[in-house]
Amino acid sequence: MFQFDARVFRNRRPALKNSFRTIPGSICAPLGFKAAAVFCDIKRIGTGKGSEKGHKRDLALIVSDVPAAVAGMFTTNQVCAAPVRVSRPRAAKKFARAIVANSGNANACTGRQGIIDANRMSELTAKSLRLKANDVLVCSTGRIGIAMPIRNVERGIRKCAPLLARSTSNARQVAEAIMTSDTRRKEIAVEMKIGKSTIRIGGICKGAGMIQPGMATMLAFITSDVAIESNALKRALKTAVEQSFNRITVDGDMSTNDSVIMLANGLAENLKLESRNPKQIQIFQTALNHVCLELAKMIVRDGEGVSRFVTLHVHGARSWMDAELAARSIANSSLVRTSWCGGDPNWGRILCALGYSKAKVNEAIVDVGYSRTDESQIVWGFRRGQPAGSLGKLGRITSQEEFDIHIDLHLGRGEFVMYAADLTENYVAFNKGDVTGG
Amino acid sequence: MFQFDARVFRNRRPALKNSFRTIPGSICAPLGFKAAAVFCDIKRIGTGKGSEKGHKRDLALIVSDVPAAVAGMFTTNQVCAAPVRVSRPRAAKKFARAIVANSGNANACTGRQGIIDANRMSELTAKSLRLKANDVLVCSTGRIGIAMPIRNVERGIRKCAPLLARSTSNARQVAEAIMTSDTRRKEIAVEMKIGKSTIRIGGICKGAGMIQPGMATMLAFITSDVAIESNALKRALKTAVEQSFNRITVDGDMSTNDSVIMLANGLAENLKLESRNPKQIQIFQTALNHVCLELAKMIVRDGEGVSRFVTLHVHGARSWMDAELAARSIANSSLVRTSWCGGDPNWGRILCALGYSKAKVNEAIVDVGYSRTDESQIVWGFRRGQPAGSLGKLGRITSQEEFDIHIDLHLGRGEFVMYAADLTENYVAFNKGDVTGG
Repeated sequence: MFQFDARVFRNRRPALKNSFRTIPGSICAPLGFKAAAVFCDIKRIGTGKGSEKGHKRDLALIVSDVPAAVAGMFTTNQVCAAPVRVSRPRAAKKFARAIVANSGNANACTGRQGIIDANRMSELTAKSLRLKANDVLVCSTGRIGIAMPIRNVERGIRKCAPLLARSTSNARQVAEAIMTSDTRRKEIAVEMKIGKSTIRIGGICKGAGMIQPGMATMLAFITSDVAIESNALKRALKTAVEQSFNRITVDGDMSTNDSVIMLANGLAENLKLESRNPKQIQIFQTALNHVCLELAKMIVRDGEGVSRFVTLHVHGARSWMDAELAARSIANSSLVRTSWCGGDPNWGRILCALGYSKAKVNEAIVDVGYSRTDESQIVWGFRRGQPAGSLGKLGRITSQEEFDIHIDLHLGRGEFVMYAADLTENYVAFNKGDVTGG
Repeated sequence: MFQFDARVFRNRRPALKNSFRTIPGSICAPLGFKAAAVFCDIKRIGTGKGSEKGHKRDLALIVSDVPAAVAGMFTTNQVCAAPVRVSRPRAAKKFARAIVANSGNANACTGRQGIIDANRMSELTAKSLRLKANDVLVCSTGRIGIAMPIRNVERGIRKCAPLLARSTSNARQVAEAIMTSDTRRKEIAVEMKIGKSTIRIGGICKGAGMIQPGMATMLAFITSDVAIESNALKRALKTAVEQSFNRITVDGDMSTNDSVIMLANGLAENLKLESRNPKQIQIFQTALNHVCLELAKMIVRDGEGVSRFVTLHVHGARSWMDAELAARSIANSSLVRTSWCGGDPNWGRILCALGYSKAKVNEAIVDVGYSRTDESQIVWGFRRGQPAGSLGKLGRITSQEEFDIHIDLHLGRGEFVMYAADLTENYVAFNKGDVTGG
């Protein structure tokens, strides 16, 4: 039975502060993880574009030296890619060993052949590394609806396996290999003490377009050398993803390929984290939340054509669900997002998007305010149903590259924070010609 | 009790064909309607823009010579403008006489003063025309969150009242006066025979941005000289709006000010249409549906920055509701709409948007095809879960200014048609600097 220990709760907050610190590197920072990436010309097939020389890598392997506890979160899109179908049951198991990932082809909407190809990728990886195929997870991102160039992928896996190493430069190559329309690598690593053991978490991800609820064209791979019970890891990852990757939006589209996969191999040799030890789990959770949130924010900032990053705070909603509905309605409104692009403090459009959200709103008591991200002072645009504040003051805030919007519905205690981006001409220009996806 | 009359049903379809014909003019085509519009500088206030000379009209009156049956459909946005709050109960009555409408200021998010100003507009109109304020409906469109320049509006109404006339040129001026970011007037009139009487329906509207479910920054005024029972008119308008204005989307935003108002004054002296006379009501309904659908399509074609007009046909959904959810998800997807802009037959993004819609979808049996609007031949891009058809053939269709997309979910009998538009750089450029709305 659970027993309430007041000391745990009293001590929790101070203990969490500075309980982790950022360290260099990413997925190879934790003990016992090796990675490598190669170019095998996956995108060119069918387009005539791309060339061997100087082309960015497009196939990557991430491997744990020993069986690792595994957890995964996948797109909720009903149309989901073959690699998601293959990997989902494998992430539901207790342990796994490796991830094979590629960019350039999403292996989505590819029918039965897609499943055969995704399975083939894991079999080849398993063979090259002397593992079981069932212990290898597969992730793909890139164009939708085009058959996987499986010969190239086979060549890539064979070329990649001997290159595996636990080096920062290898991890960097993997972070690059999964990029599609991303303009920069997204990577992070942190370190913390739990008991007497030092534990590391490392992560990389890719984002760009199709970023919205329940994740996006988004792949994230997180490694840790923590010893943790498998179910506790699954719960921890779910919690972290809900507060990070599930709270970002670039264009409101949700991809067919989203996957967040985590491996924890226990080589830090800490006392195994279990659910019945909430204090230690909490230290780990805080660090994992930070890793996921920082990666998620990197995705929004590097979204296709994005020029402004907006943090939306909804308070006072009738319920938590209502707060989320209100935030998503604003964050995905084309008119709100274009006004952000223009640096325009257009609280009218925000009210309008609030009004057509499914959240309960009473116009006569709503507050909408703006603040600089680095300042706490809120300038109100609309207060208790009346226009307020000067457009000049507001405009000085919305002309920043990053700012915060504060909405109080004054109807209850529901709260939600969301990380959003503006809609720019560059987004349209980028997406109107391209055939990427998934 | 209802009795099934086979003859009615057998004869219905042929009777409906060519039961109406298009005639010149718009709201002044039916007997007994007068209109006028003036410039009174509503937008300039607070911006320093605009000038008396050569400026487009911004205030309009539409008046019936005799009490007219009235019907209205309004935005479902919880944040709704003052004129909507004032007009909604008046449209629920049996009769009304006049409409006063302005562009340049939406009188939305203007608190208590907004309601006072909207009431004042109807009182002034009533006084100038010797009517009761309760018989005057008010509509506004333009900027959100700025107090109505009521002195200018007062001057405008006084200037406008003496100009009322039943002329096509006056109707044209009214169609222009309600325009905001519209680039052209939207007007239509039809004529039909019911019994021995000739009946006319005329309509004008404005659209542009914020066009989506449950209507949009959209005002539409429809007049008719039909004699019709008030409740039958309300039902007929609801039916027509659901199949037209509620099936268009430009940017997925729903405005605070949407209103469709219809007046039917009975001066055609037909035998009064009542619900228990379904055959005659049906002739009228068909013509009204046509008027509303044509106006709605004009709105999409003239949407902000729109370069392509797409008719989406969803078939085989599990339910009618599912068909609508699927269609709206596709029509509002930023990625789908940018691909239309580029003339790209990107069925992958359509599948993706289908997958994250709330409609039931089974990827393995979905069909997605394209056709020219003027041809019936469908070229399939994705058929029964497999890529199909050549991108070249598809590209020749999607390079047209107007084309159709056909989706069959093969799960049931649910169907929905929707009229959508692409997302262009011009949309973003237009909306990022402007402060219009409502």
